[in-house]
Amino acid sequence: MIDPPTESTEAQPGEVGLVQWKDFHWENDFVCESGDTIKGFTLRYETYGRLNPEKDNAVLVCHALSGDHHCAGIHSLKDRKQGWWNNLIGPGKALDTNKYFVICSNCLGGCQGSTGPKSLNPATGRSYNLDFPLVSIRDMVQAQYRLLTRGLGLPGLYAVIGGSMGGMQVLQWGIEYPDFVQKLVPMATTARQNAQAIAFNEVGRLAIIQDPAWQEGDYEEGRGPNVGLAVARMMAHITYLSDAGLEKKFGRGRVEGDAARSQFDAEFQVESYLRYQGQSFINRFDANSYLYLTKALDRFDLYGESGRLEDQLERVRSRTLVVGFQSDWLFPPGQNRSIVHALLRCGKDATYAELGLTLGHDSFLVHAPDLYTIVRNFLAS
Amino acid sequence: MIDPPTESTEAQPGEVGLVQWKDFHWENDFVCESGDTIKGFTLRYETYGRLNPEKDNAVLVCHALSGDHHCAGIHSLKDRKQGWWNNLIGPGKALDTNKYFVICSNCLGGCQGSTGPKSLNPATGRSYNLDFPLVSIRDMVQAQYRLLTRGLGLPGLYAVIGGSMGGMQVLQWGIEYPDFVQKLVPMATTARQNAQAIAFNEVGRLAIIQDPAWQEGDYEEGRGPNVGLAVARMMAHITYLSDAGLEKKFGRGRVEGDAARSQFDAEFQVESYLRYQGQSFINRFDANSYLYLTKALDRFDLYGESGRLEDQLERVRSRTLVVGFQSDWLFPPGQNRSIVHALLRCGKDATYAELGLTLGHDSFLVHAPDLYTIVRNFLAS
Repeated sequence: MIDPPTESTEAQPGEVGLVQWKDFHWENDFVCESGDTIKGFTLRYETYGRLNPEKDNAVLVCHALSGDHHCAGIHSLKDRKQGWWNNLIGPGKALDTNKYFVICSNCLGGCQGSTGPKSLNPATGRSYNLDFPLVSIRDMVQAQYRLLTRGLGLPGLYAVIGGSMGGMQVLQWGIEYPDFVQKLVPMATTARQNAQAIAFNEVGRLAIIQDPAWQEGDYEEGRGPNVGLAVARMMAHITYLSDAGLEKKFGRGRVEGDAARSQFDAEFQVESYLRYQGQSFINRFDANSYLYLTKALDRFDLYGESGRLEDQLERVRSRTLVVGFQSDWLFPPGQNRSIVHALLRCGKDATYAELGLTLGHDSFLVHAPDLYTIVRNFLAS
Repeated sequence: MIDPPTESTEAQPGEVGLVQWKDFHWENDFVCESGDTIKGFTLRYETYGRLNPEKDNAVLVCHALSGDHHCAGIHSLKDRKQGWWNNLIGPGKALDTNKYFVICSNCLGGCQGSTGPKSLNPATGRSYNLDFPLVSIRDMVQAQYRLLTRGLGLPGLYAVIGGSMGGMQVLQWGIEYPDFVQKLVPMATTARQNAQAIAFNEVGRLAIIQDPAWQEGDYEEGRGPNVGLAVARMMAHITYLSDAGLEKKFGRGRVEGDAARSQFDAEFQVESYLRYQGQSFINRFDANSYLYLTKALDRFDLYGESGRLEDQLERVRSRTLVVGFQSDWLFPPGQNRSIVHALLRCGKDATYAELGLTLGHDSFLVHAPDLYTIVRNFLAS
């Protein structure tokens, strides 16, 4: 294979360009919310832009369930795909890397370089698998705090921003470290998973744990419950989109191909699209991580035992912009509004934008100029 | 085991009481819409009430994907559960068996006694399995027509009523046999499956066909792809309910039990409910039938190549009441309204009721006095 023509490695206008991940190692014991202890952890992370001398321009990006630390730029000139939030992050973009020092880390429990179920358990020399503790959203945030303070020496964050599971982390940041963060931007998120969201996660988990290849979580890397994981991903992917969005993109369009296909091959384009989503997911995601992260989502509940969201949110001291999307039926606008209403009831500096994008839950990831303007101005204000 | 005390076998007031199914055998070739031929078929059916001397009080009930011919009454005094539409059907009920002669048959392609993939293929002496043709909604209706005319000697139907896949059959009845049916009552249905509905069916099918026990459809009865079928059912079941309905019924309620449960056992009540739904489904449903029936749903498209619903619906001569449910997100109100609007554009005698029940797609199956009043009066009018 011939290398592509040598190009400048300088960032293209508007792009962060080539980036490299780094690893932060925490060597001490880390006590999880469950009470279980892990003997240290690694967080893989990337940064874009530069920390200013005052060290007050750092923005943390928190990723969603299937995301990772690579949210902008490319790892190699051969990369065709940029980081998952490249639309938002870059020089001159809404999250402007000429202005902000942007950090994103793969979450604790993840499978893209940070410590999770498939990492080596120092106590046994083998993968944790099901010996990994049930990590929580709060654990993810506490691990990130160690990266930021001990790893990067940051005295605070200008902002934390993220959608979906990332939005839950943003909220937890505001509660856990109220004096560390100036601004919060949770999007397409919820203060607790409701029954329907738990139900979808549970079906995905059962598809995985009933796959014979799961082996009680003790599968070898690459030989895991790929069928179950692909089914889980395909189903979840539907919940990230919308009826109208799918209809516009695929409708009842047929797959082109020979007529001799067997009866249950993909016939409609939407089927072939979903199959592709399932297959590409198994190449990049660990099934046990999927179990652990969905469980962290399901257990997330800022209403707590009192049933009053204010009991948690009254700790927040950051200015907050909540963003909901009208077509999001996984974490619908009402769940996002509940967050901002509770903040306002507590007398907090909070605002809310509800955008009419039609692509469902994943609207925060698509090209959305309205969203960029709102985020840019909220951060600048 | 001791038999329960002997009770009268007379119907309780308001109940059809003990009923028995019968089988209708069609001995001739049956040419499917696909062009494939099956050498005869059986339809299992039940009837309630009596045909009047004028033979003009017959009402056909069409069942949904997972339903069957047993829509009212009990099969034995030990039965704890009544037929699936017992709320609606019985003496003095909305579909009044003192007044109407009610018929319901398990659809062609089904697995409750009617001919479907697990039936014996007379050409081979073995189950059809994947040699069964891809039957369509129209095939189901044409098979029912043979039962009604040749089996029961009916000159016509007073009405056809059904929800979901049953509603598709109701529409097809009006198109296929316009002079045979006086009234149509399709509910919670659609004139064509949209991309999202196809997508959910496809994930269910893939869960089944990727289950190693599926064996290209050649599994032995009782040893089929139970894991895949349960996953498919659990996921589909979520789409039959609603966010608000699940929240009201389960919320974040926890399962009671010992704390020593493993990490991925059912923790929330909604999880345990779904697991039960999945497990009970595999005891009563054939996986290949599930593949065939969901495919019939996905291929149903009254818009056809012209993209004009009126091209089909202008054939209808029956009075039509379409019923949609506001909380139904599988076949949302808009899809039901489209049907009635197309009928009205064709100048047909059609009306529409949109009910505010909160239980989602399955609202037509729950206790719904408003629905009963509307159906009763439409039938009486």
